[in-house]
This record gives sequence, structure tokens and C-alpha cells, in this order.
Amino acid sequence: MLIYANAMHHLHHGRQEMFRGRLVPCVEVPQRVDHVLAELARRPLGEQRQAPADGLDAALLTVHAPDYLQFLATAWDQWLAIDPANAEYDVLPSVWPVRGMRRDIVPANFSARVGLYSFDAGTPLTAGSWTAAREGAACALAAARAVSAGEAGSALALSRPPGHHAGAEFFGGYCFLNNSALAAQVLRDSGCERVSVLDIDYHHGNGTQSIFYERADVQTISLHGDPRTEYPFYLGFADERGAGAGVGFNLNLPLPRGTGFADWRAALATALDAVTGFAPQALVIAVGVDTFEGDPISGFRLRSADYLDIGRDIRRAVGSLPLVWVFEGGYAVDEIGVNLVNILEGFSDAA
Amino acid sequence: MLIYANAMHHLHHGRQEMFRGRLVPCVEVPQRVDHVLAELARRPLGEQRQAPADGLDAALLTVHAPDYLQFLATAWDQWLAIDPANAEYDVLPSVWPVRGMRRDIVPANFSARVGLYSFDAGTPLTAGSWTAAREGAACALAAARAVSAGEAGSALALSRPPGHHAGAEFFGGYCFLNNSALAAQVLRDSGCERVSVLDIDYHHGNGTQSIFYERADVQTISLHGDPRTEYPFYLGFADERGAGAGVGFNLNLPLPRGTGFADWRAALATALDAVTGFAPQALVIAVGVDTFEGDPISGFRLRSADYLDIGRDIRRAVGSLPLVWVFEGGYAVDEIGVNLVNILEGFSDAA
Repeated sequence: MLIYANAMHHLHHGRQEMFRGRLVPCVEVPQRVDHVLAELARRPLGEQRQAPADGLDAALLTVHAPDYLQFLATAWDQWLAIDPANAEYDVLPSVWPVRGMRRDIVPANFSARVGLYSFDAGTPLTAGSWTAAREGAACALAAARAVSAGEAGSALALSRPPGHHAGAEFFGGYCFLNNSALAAQVLRDSGCERVSVLDIDYHHGNGTQSIFYERADVQTISLHGDPRTEYPFYLGFADERGAGAGVGFNLNLPLPRGTGFADWRAALATALDAVTGFAPQALVIAVGVDTFEGDPISGFRLRSADYLDIGRDIRRAVGSLPLVWVFEGGYAVDEIGVNLVNILEGFSDAA
Repeated sequence: MLIYANAMHHLHHGRQEMFRGRLVPCVEVPQRVDHVLAELARRPLGEQRQAPADGLDAALLTVHAPDYLQFLATAWDQWLAIDPANAEYDVLPSVWPVRGMRRDIVPANFSARVGLYSFDAGTPLTAGSWTAAREGAACALAAARAVSAGEAGSALALSRPPGHHAGAEFFGGYCFLNNSALAAQVLRDSGCERVSVLDIDYHHGNGTQSIFYERADVQTISLHGDPRTEYPFYLGFADERGAGAGVGFNLNLPLPRGTGFADWRAALATALDAVTGFAPQALVIAVGVDTFEGDPISGFRLRSADYLDIGRDIRRAVGSLPLVWVFEGGYAVDEIGVNLVNILEGFSDAA
């Protein structure tokens, strides 16, 4: 397994997020990746490589809108241009276009642009967010390229901030660039006719689903907390099967808050059956470990040892299918390294 | 002129609103109506009456969605049910359904419902917001009924919180219930075949426009700061002329930040020509005085004496057309009474 870790991820360090009418300390913190790297130092699973950034801008344009990328790239400078004292605060949206409002005119007002390109106020855009997110996307790009080139059977993109909530033209859910979608698209563009994205994060991968929703060449499957009660709330229901040419190529498996490993594992088996039924030439796994019983913002009851079984189950189902792991959520920081590496070790050991 | 003042308005007193990534004290404060009442005590313009609430619930359903009203009526209790300590905080949205997300399922999660029904984080929902907004709507209802019954040629609804940003199913812009739209609909339901709503607040009346956008029986006209740079940003452009049966019955007159009275007055003349061209049986004026040069969140340069001319211009154009004034914005609290009463006095004197 090749490992591409985001060397710049610490540049994204939000100060506060909105939660229940107040600003609270951010849940998505740099220590998340640091703890994974520490665990990988204890249990090495493969060679760690630097991710080159060549071709990244062109690749990002295959999954994100140009004006959205332009916004992200320039947002912090625009924020300071309003008032240098803004450096003391991160960017958070405060107004957004509800249904019936226009999205066809990019506002001249900065706050209005922030709202145009976002869907929550839990994702502070900071001085280093663009650099960090871009480098994280470079990891996903490099991992997908390495796998498609046959340099390794699988590769891990340790790309913090996470990505699966980011859509073609919006950020939210701690995500700016959709690393999993980017990896899938890179695999497609490298010659794989069919690619599957399996999202096992606690939260529905709404961004990934929306990016590929009308396409038959990228299958999207997500196993997650029921959106009736769980973030991101407005997408991830079982009746969302795709649209247009994409009908039948999206599968959502929502599970109630409180789900334990037996039921979760049964849903994983259903998801893996769908993957093998699609017969992809490559697979992306959006791997969050916020399914852990100790996760502070989630509601499943998986234990650390269960993650070894998850890795094994995946290996048994997909065998040597070229595979890119893309790191997503997980907020029980002390256990995040053990849980993620358990999945990867279970996968590797079952080879 | 009959005057219906919201006796409960002080029950809505937000603590903080989101602005540029931080929580700041609310701009829309109870003193606004208190100052208007003080000025009306100095310069009495008519009889002040209590607004009866009979028929209010049915009337509200003519402009708002039932589930939205149910949400507003129960929101504070639901907020406290999550955690009694929430009483220390007002309700503000933190996640919302961006384009492509679903609005057809009302989420079980309270925060998700807040986001479903809102378009900004500047409009705190407080313990008394529903009672205050409901009583304010009762003022608009009573004013419209009195005018349609011929009890007076005109009536003023001093209905704080304001209303013109609120849509059929969303709050925002300091507004929960669209008092101006309610007054127009009440006039329609009282037998007026055609009703005009003229919005002279600094900010575009997006809620009112959206409620009547596909209708030919209620003409909507708004004179406001250009949404390219001014709130509410995502609606209020000149090319919005109505849809379906409503094509031709919406008129937006955006003006650049910095506009002074001469240019503003010329736009008012255009608006009044459109009103008289429509030949309505009644008129609602959504009257904000945030066009004032000293307004802290707006950008026009009208002076206090100009408001006398505004009242006169309106009177000369519409004569004795039945007229309901509905109070909207204005945040230069010290001058708000003088400015609003100047309009009304100019209107009355020119009779």
C-alpha cells in the first residue's frame, strides 16, 4: 500500500464552528491526521510518498466548478481586503440563497459569495484552508494515479480536510474539495470504464453523490446514519437511486442512530455486493471512522476491533481490485489512528 | 389614519446575529418601535387601536405554508426540549439545503428544520419571537380590514419584527411573517380585484416578491439597493418581471449604493406610475426608513426632510386610494421616529 499524507493539512485549523446558535471550538482538528500518522509509524503498512501537484488544477476542474475553485483560492485575501482585522476571525456564511433565489449572478458582496458556495456554518474557511485542501486533493490525485498505473494494488490518501460533503460548487461538513470524487474521476480518466465509490463514513457522502448522480460510469454507495436525524440531513435517503443516465447507480444504506457492528456489517455486505455487481475496474473507499462508539458527533456503536473485520470484509469482497482509500471523518481523536489503521491492516492481512 | 401598533413587539429581542464570521449584537431592536410611538405621541396622526387577533390563523395560511407556521409556533419549546440550557441562546441556523438537496422531507433533527426554514443567520428566533411576530401580523390584518371596510382611508401597521424578507416558508432578514404580503392578501380577500404592494425599504422585498411572483392580481414593486452589493443579494434584480400568470406584475428598481434623494425620488415616480398604470383598488406600502443617510447597515443618502416629500409624492400619485402602510426596516434608531412620521405627515398634509 502506498500512502500519501497531506504535508500541509495543519494549515487548515478552524477556530470556531456554529452549533445550536453559538460558536464552539472546531471538532475537525489537525490532531486527527497527526494521530493517524503516529499509528502508521507504530504499524507501518506501506511506503509513504510525497504527492506531486502537477496536473492538479486541471484535475480539480473535472469535479468542481471553475468559479467555486476561484472563490476558494482567493477567499482569504478578499476577506482581509474588507478589513485587515478580519484576520482575527475565520470566514463563515451568514446568508445563503434559499429555493427561489438566484444563483446565476455571482454577487459582488463577499459575504453573499460565501453563502452562494456553502451549505453550513460549521466549516470555517481560514488563512490556510485553500493550501491545505489543495494539498489534500493532490494526495487523492497521486493515490489514484499510482493505483491506476499499477504501482501498487492500493493507496491511501490521508487528505485532511475531508472531502465527501463538498459538492461541485459548495463547501460544508468540514469539506472544501471532494477528494473521493476526484480520485474516482482520475481513475475514470486513466482508463477505468467503471469506478465505484463506497463511502463508509458515518455521514452521508452528499457531495460525492451529487457530483456523480446523473452518471452511469461512477457508482456511488454510502452507508451512513439516517439523514432524518443525522447530518447532512437533506440528502442520503434510500429512495435516491440516481437520475437520468445515472438511475440505478447510486445506493444509500441509511442506518438508525445506535446501530451496532452486526447490523452495520450486514449493510456493508449489501454495499459490497452492489460493488461487485457493478464490476468496476477500480474502487474508491471514502473511509471515515466516525462510526466508532466513542465519536463525539456521531451515533453508531462500532468498537476498535471491528475495524479489523471491516478491512477483512472489504478484501474478501473486492480481492485485488485497484483500490484508493480516501480519508474522511472521525472525531474521536485519541482512537482515530488505531481505528483507521485497523481497517487498513485488516485489509492487508486478508490478502 | 388608523394606527395599529404591535403591543407585544418587545417580546422579540434577539441577542446576537451572525455577521462576517462572528456573533454581534442585533441591529433590529425593540427601541425602533418605541421611538416611532414616541414621535407619534408628539405628532399625532390618527387614532391608535388594538388589533384583534380573530381570524389571524386562517389569514396567515393564505401567505405562509402550514408546516412553516407550525415550526415557528413550536420552535422555542423544541429548542428547550433539546436542552433547557438552550434558553441562554437564541435559535440560529447552522446548516441548510443547498441546491440539489431535498426539501420534501421535514427533518426530525431540530437544527435541520431551522435551516430548512431560513435563509440567513441574522434573524435569531427567541422565546418571544412567535408571539411578537404573530401580534405584528395581527396589526397588518387589522389595518387591511379597516381600510377595506372604509373605516379610514389609510391605516398604519406598526408591526415589528419586520416582514418583507419572509417568504411563504422561510424566515430571514429580521423577518418571520410577511406582514405586507398578508395585508395585500387580506385586501384581495376583502373584494379588491387588484392590489399593489410598493416596497420602499432600502432592501429588496424578496419575500413579498416570491409570494406573489406568479400572480397577476397582486402587483409587487420594490425600490432598493442593488442586490449585487446589498442584502438580500440573491433577488431583486431588474430582470425579474414575474413568472407564469404573473409576468409583468413584478417591478424591481435597484439603485446603486450612495444614491441620493433626487435619483431615489425619480425611481419612486417610476414606481408610482407603475402603480397607477395597474389601477389597483388598494395599495400596501412596505415602508422602511433605512434609506436614511445615517442608517448603520444601508447605503442611500436620504435626509429626514426628504421623507416629508416622499409622503407628498405618494399622496399626489395615489390620491384617496385605500392604503395600508406596513412598517419594515430602519436601523438609525434615534431618527427612525422622525423619518417614518415625516412620511406619514407628508402624506396626510398633501391630502
